[in-house]
Amino acid sequence: MSVSTKFIPGWLKGYSSEKLGADMAAGLIVTVLVIPQSLAYALLAGLPPQTGLYVSIFPVIAYALLGSSMVQAVGPVAITAIMTYSVLTPLAGPASPEYVTLAAALSLISGVMVLACGAMRLGFLSQLLSRPVISGFISGSAILIIISQIRHLLGILPQGGNGWEMALDLLEKIPQVSGPTVAIGVTALAALIFVKAGLADVLTRAGMGANKVVFAIRLMPLVVVLFGTLAVVHWDLDHRAGVSVVGAIVEGVPGFALFMPGYDAIRNLIVPACVMTLVGMVQSVSMAQALAIKRRERVDANAELVGLGAANVVAAFYGGMPVGGGLSRSAVNVAAGAQTPLASIVSALAMLAVVAGAAHWFERLPLAVLAASIMVAAYSMIDIRAFRRAWAYDRADGLALLGTAGGVLVFGLEIGIGMGVLLSTATLLLRASTPHIAVVGRIPGSEHFRNVVRHDVETIPGALFVRIDERLFFGNLGAVEMRLNQELEQVAGARDLVLVMSAVNLMDATAVEVFGELNRELAERGIRLHLAEVKGPIQDRLMRTELWSTLSGEVFLSANDAFERLR
Amino acid sequence: MSVSTKFIPGWLKGYSSEKLGADMAAGLIVTVLVIPQSLAYALLAGLPPQTGLYVSIFPVIAYALLGSSMVQAVGPVAITAIMTYSVLTPLAGPASPEYVTLAAALSLISGVMVLACGAMRLGFLSQLLSRPVISGFISGSAILIIISQIRHLLGILPQGGNGWEMALDLLEKIPQVSGPTVAIGVTALAALIFVKAGLADVLTRAGMGANKVVFAIRLMPLVVVLFGTLAVVHWDLDHRAGVSVVGAIVEGVPGFALFMPGYDAIRNLIVPACVMTLVGMVQSVSMAQALAIKRRERVDANAELVGLGAANVVAAFYGGMPVGGGLSRSAVNVAAGAQTPLASIVSALAMLAVVAGAAHWFERLPLAVLAASIMVAAYSMIDIRAFRRAWAYDRADGLALLGTAGGVLVFGLEIGIGMGVLLSTATLLLRASTPHIAVVGRIPGSEHFRNVVRHDVETIPGALFVRIDERLFFGNLGAVEMRLNQELEQVAGARDLVLVMSAVNLMDATAVEVFGELNRELAERGIRLHLAEVKGPIQDRLMRTELWSTLSGEVFLSANDAFERLR
Repeated sequence: MSVSTKFIPGWLKGYSSEKLGADMAAGLIVTVLVIPQSLAYALLAGLPPQTGLYVSIFPVIAYALLGSSMVQAVGPVAITAIMTYSVLTPLAGPASPEYVTLAAALSLISGVMVLACGAMRLGFLSQLLSRPVISGFISGSAILIIISQIRHLLGILPQGGNGWEMALDLLEKIPQVSGPTVAIGVTALAALIFVKAGLADVLTRAGMGANKVVFAIRLMPLVVVLFGTLAVVHWDLDHRAGVSVVGAIVEGVPGFALFMPGYDAIRNLIVPACVMTLVGMVQSVSMAQALAIKRRERVDANAELVGLGAANVVAAFYGGMPVGGGLSRSAVNVAAGAQTPLASIVSALAMLAVVAGAAHWFERLPLAVLAASIMVAAYSMIDIRAFRRAWAYDRADGLALLGTAGGVLVFGLEIGIGMGVLLSTATLLLRASTPHIAVVGRIPGSEHFRNVVRHDVETIPGALFVRIDERLFFGNLGAVEMRLNQELEQVAGARDLVLVMSAVNLMDATAVEVFGELNRELAERGIRLHLAEVKGPIQDRLMRTELWSTLSGEVFLSANDAFERLR
Repeated sequence: MSVSTKFIPGWLKGYSSEKLGADMAAGLIVTVLVIPQSLAYALLAGLPPQTGLYVSIFPVIAYALLGSSMVQAVGPVAITAIMTYSVLTPLAGPASPEYVTLAAALSLISGVMVLACGAMRLGFLSQLLSRPVISGFISGSAILIIISQIRHLLGILPQGGNGWEMALDLLEKIPQVSGPTVAIGVTALAALIFVKAGLADVLTRAGMGANKVVFAIRLMPLVVVLFGTLAVVHWDLDHRAGVSVVGAIVEGVPGFALFMPGYDAIRNLIVPACVMTLVGMVQSVSMAQALAIKRRERVDANAELVGLGAANVVAAFYGGMPVGGGLSRSAVNVAAGAQTPLASIVSALAMLAVVAGAAHWFERLPLAVLAASIMVAAYSMIDIRAFRRAWAYDRADGLALLGTAGGVLVFGLEIGIGMGVLLSTATLLLRASTPHIAVVGRIPGSEHFRNVVRHDVETIPGALFVRIDERLFFGNLGAVEMRLNQELEQVAGARDLVLVMSAVNLMDATAVEVFGELNRELAERGIRLHLAEVKGPIQDRLMRTELWSTLSGEVFLSANDAFERLR
């Protein structure tokens, strides 16, 4: 075999002709259905709408050749679009040439980071985000997206800022609302809400098959776009009533724009790019995994990151908008019967044809219609059930979710996710700093030890058996020591303290020092300190310490051994 | 009883006349012995040397009335002195009026914080710092102290900056070295090193009693100071050879200087004040506790903080230098026989007399001698053994120590301690993210389950028993899932997976979701998921989740129950 076969993706080697028809059909269907969404997310990102079409071509091909998911479809996605908007509006005017260059730099930096994470097998870094934090981030971003689109729906002038500032700005500008724009926008919104909420039911009752229902629903946004455009053309609303439309689209194959971000751009964009990298990794990998589980395939998270990173690097040079694994476009792809990434390649080539010859059809598409479709998509991203579930299970997790969502709305996306990471780490430390500690005794006739409060157990006068249910580390030693002293005060004539360590998974260096001090202090008070059921890895470490060599009591294999000896 | 008795400290109520003599004697001895140290630490802080005497008066009285330790002596200490220097030199020239005001503001802000922590019973906050981090911080600061004093020893002009910059600056200025200053400084240094290293041995062999040896050693710095001053006076070195001396000291009772730090000062000093608060709390509380344990007394950590905070607030208005619980002055106090805080009050009044009438004795004391005494004190703070111990026990703890010390030297005190906190938290998360997981089987003829690799155990074909030795949280679920899948692949015809949860002390919301997905996925593959030995608190939470209601397998009280059922 020649070296070059290494660079041919696995799915192409065993490609069968039966798959070809399915992939061709799926690719063409996806192209048509994702056009409105691609335009809309570019608008959401503050970029010229056609940018959304451009990045649905070459980046998609890059992902198809390098990614590991069989059916995930990449393209413009809502979360990275709103991140782009929120990061760049303080730096340049939306859709200005500097803005486009900055967006491209953001894609490039974040793409290189994702590629590097994939190549260095650092995919596990995305585990830094807990589910409640991710959920809070997405819900908060979705609300931010909805707020950011109201102005397009109402036809008033845009203004950046965080969620709070945008909402205030909107209220101030209510008098500027444009009647015809509102009429078109609200009609589109109503139609799309009906499609989302009731159409499936209606069509199913009318006897339509499940797969056809999926397509009918996915087709509706395009129908709404069509009617919106026709309305503008018919009444000449863009010229006579000031309704904002997509505007002039440069046709032809998008050119390759070589550039290097300058030092200033890198400095301004490095933190947002890190956040985008993290969020992009979490979103794309988890979606690819969910799709793979349903299809009983496997994804390699790191190969997935290489594909995603490469797609973003390519996107930087062909349009400049960050891309990711999209929920709705992947769903369309699967429903249309895609078998392999060839479907995505077909879709990319079809999109190239659209851009080259048919893009002007969208020039008079009203922005209010795109805004309506963005708002409907964003609404479905708000996950109230995730909050209820987290809150019911654990208040701290629920608070981390709320804190992240609130942080995103009030302070912006980067600080919001930073707050989420801090909250979940703090929760973890806080839980570990208030350990569960139980005084135990032996259940008569057995070798089992249970909490003296909950069970009827045997105890030995003067000997205290305490089970610590937590790792021992610098953050909880004060609490553990205080509790041990409290319990010892309850025991008349205490002679022996046995620590049952079956649930102690770790002791850090601070714990060894503190227990060394406790050992000396107890010895002075005439109390021996014993250890029981110490885990192997901890015992290996402890044997090298002064605590071990100066321990006033003994080390027992089991609590029962200690019980038998001390009785 | 009248209300006013509430404000009389406990030790005063039962005061006996026998204690009076001991306290008086100890107080007077401490005053004489701590004079050189107080002058030296003020110099180290970049403040006029007499400031060290001023803050040994009223702050000491405040602590004596409010603190809870019987014998701890507060006053200027090395760590807060170097922190003051490192924080303030970028803002003002050492010993300038602005510098003194800023130092006072720093004392005030940090004092108020410590007071607030004590009053709100937040003393546990100091647990945020692990022992290796504290040790690294102190060792790094000690090296920084030594570097900062070399210039006084060599008689060259001071320049601020971090450890690295100071060292480079010194090398550049070597040609400016002042011969007579070096002669005095190096002689003092040699004398003090001999006192520290060899004098105790010599005196003990000469038949001197242990307590007298302690005093002789503590008295030596004063002797060195005396000889240094006599040398300057005799040869008129300050005027004729340019040897730097303490200079004019304003005599009389130090005045109360009322001031409020401005907004700018607060903004600049808030982060350093937080760090100083944290370090001050750790140092003073741990020292008070160590002293109390030796004397079989108890300290109330929060009362201790109230005393320390009040002392710093008072210090802000009488001199402006932060104070803390000092190791060497407390040791002198104990050795001199102090019984109660009355000793400190006596010492404060004696110091008032010194400042009012005898301060001019120190005007021609050469700075090089003070620098030598600081260097000797700082050297004893470098704890190489703590590093060896931490490194031997756990590489990660050793690295946290090194990282903190290195951070202090290269980036400064605040960033250094920040790095330490980050390193110790990251270590904690990293350990928890690579959990210990063991496939277990039953030891024949018992109800005990042990690792199949280490022991000869019974297993059931098609059933996998896995014990997870770590809390389940967002950071380690990927690793746990991967390991479970690997182990399942080893089992021919797997039907049952039993998770033995005896060492799982916590499951967060992310874990519940991931295990819910695992449960569904395994069910599709025809494998039932069982849980055994779930801890009470976790079970209480789990019962409210979907995972619990849809679990494909059963929940067993013990691994043995599961074994009996599945066999």
